[in-house]
Amino acid sequence: MVRGIGDDCAVLQAPAGSHLLVTTDLCIEDVHFRREWHPARSVGHRCLARGLSDIAAMGGEPLACFLSLGLPPELSQRWVDDFFQGLLHLAGQFKIGLSGGDTSGARKITADIMVLGTVPAGEAVLRCGARPGDRIYVTGKLGGSAAVLQRLYAGKKVAAKKSLRHFYPEPRIEAARWLRKNKLAHAMIDLSDGLSVDLAHICRESKVSALINLGAIPMARGADLALALHGGEDYELLFTAPEKVKPPLQISGVPVVAIGEIQSTTARGPTVRYVDATGRLRTLKPSGWQHFAKT
Amino acid sequence: MVRGIGDDCAVLQAPAGSHLLVTTDLCIEDVHFRREWHPARSVGHRCLARGLSDIAAMGGEPLACFLSLGLPPELSQRWVDDFFQGLLHLAGQFKIGLSGGDTSGARKITADIMVLGTVPAGEAVLRCGARPGDRIYVTGKLGGSAAVLQRLYAGKKVAAKKSLRHFYPEPRIEAARWLRKNKLAHAMIDLSDGLSVDLAHICRESKVSALINLGAIPMARGADLALALHGGEDYELLFTAPEKVKPPLQISGVPVVAIGEIQSTTARGPTVRYVDATGRLRTLKPSGWQHFAKT
Repeated sequence: MVRGIGDDCAVLQAPAGSHLLVTTDLCIEDVHFRREWHPARSVGHRCLARGLSDIAAMGGEPLACFLSLGLPPELSQRWVDDFFQGLLHLAGQFKIGLSGGDTSGARKITADIMVLGTVPAGEAVLRCGARPGDRIYVTGKLGGSAAVLQRLYAGKKVAAKKSLRHFYPEPRIEAARWLRKNKLAHAMIDLSDGLSVDLAHICRESKVSALINLGAIPMARGADLALALHGGEDYELLFTAPEKVKPPLQISGVPVVAIGEIQSTTARGPTVRYVDATGRLRTLKPSGWQHFAKT
Repeated sequence: MVRGIGDDCAVLQAPAGSHLLVTTDLCIEDVHFRREWHPARSVGHRCLARGLSDIAAMGGEPLACFLSLGLPPELSQRWVDDFFQGLLHLAGQFKIGLSGGDTSGARKITADIMVLGTVPAGEAVLRCGARPGDRIYVTGKLGGSAAVLQRLYAGKKVAAKKSLRHFYPEPRIEAARWLRKNKLAHAMIDLSDGLSVDLAHICRESKVSALINLGAIPMARGADLALALHGGEDYELLFTAPEKVKPPLQISGVPVVAIGEIQSTTARGPTVRYVDATGRLRTLKPSGWQHFAKT
């Protein structure tokens, strides 16, 4: 950073020959988190993780983050300190600074994170590059975050352990960088809304269809198939790669599993399909997790 | 823009040899605006104008904007349409697009705008460049926005005319570009918090003091000296320039007036002072407009 907090704008320098990546994510109390469920440290971590995961989805390198924060006046300084500790600890892991932002009063805690990244010009991995014949892969295991949310909804206490991706998701920056550098992925997205929704995004943007193998979907502990298909906020990577290219079984320590293939689009347009237990071809309707918005 | 809405990130290209400018501004209902006072079109305009004004304050060129928008479910589509019309009309004036963002439910309308700009590397006009002997200048007239707010507070109706800077402030991008290209300004800031606060920022960052001539401060219609000194949201430029350089009386059609000079910092640190009617040197305390936060 050339110049940071304390001027009208932050002044940043991107590497020569790079394209910029920009993403913003809004986190609002009682929409994206609840104070009684999520410790402040987890809220700060999750807030930045969402943005970093978007940078990962393009194969990008994080450059800087910015935070606009609206805080209710009765909120304790301790909460705010813990929030920043969670956010800044994750920022430190990826060697970026909090380069600016804005603050205000608000009725509900409102955190809008903006993450800037870079990628060598022309190398961003887009959603629109999937081609018929590509294999579809996911990193890690799915449904774990939604499984925790389901237990919280059911009134169960869930301790916010570091190992639980619901509370402390790990953006897949390294694995995505490896995929980009090795020019392996035709198309990529991060699993924020849920596999059924996010794969539909790739199909729509790429004008292709997908056939997935339900038996191959890697399920997180505590998750069932429905949560793995439709539960969001796992922040794993979903990507497609040409059939003849075989990705390693692990990238940067994260397992990679083939879950299906890209096909030409059907007469009904881009669809995601699977074969059910009786051998019939069925359509998987996109139905991602709708957070817990009751506002 | 290389790639916009519809992927995980927007992909942008900045001109070679440029530095990036980034600013974020949070606008929350009942903190920064009131639905009964500010038409949706004005809220959208003001939201983006704040960010553009920060880009202007650095002498920058707007590149793109991003919006995170939290909306109460009962809000009419008409309100949202008008908000976007106000925002996009201003964006069009400066030839930038809305390149991405996020949406969510929220109790109160919450709009976080992020504006990206560029400036040739090393040419950003910072707050820290003021030197003793510099003359202090402002563009336009001050206190007009606060004068309108004062009338609204007093329960008076004020029609949101296009000509009222409170409702439709004009970011001084062109004037600031001229100043940067002509290497005229040592230090610059936009008048968002009020002259007394914003000049104190320049003094603190530049480690200098300032002596202002109260009689020279250009007052907007309806404003008094207190509003011109402490009223915020005029979004005019405040800059310093070497004594021997004489800026034109108008830049891009905007009047420019000298209002004082930069001096060495006093024993008490950076201060802003003025001479009162009896000839005594007095300190101007920074006391900007505190919006109308009652949350």
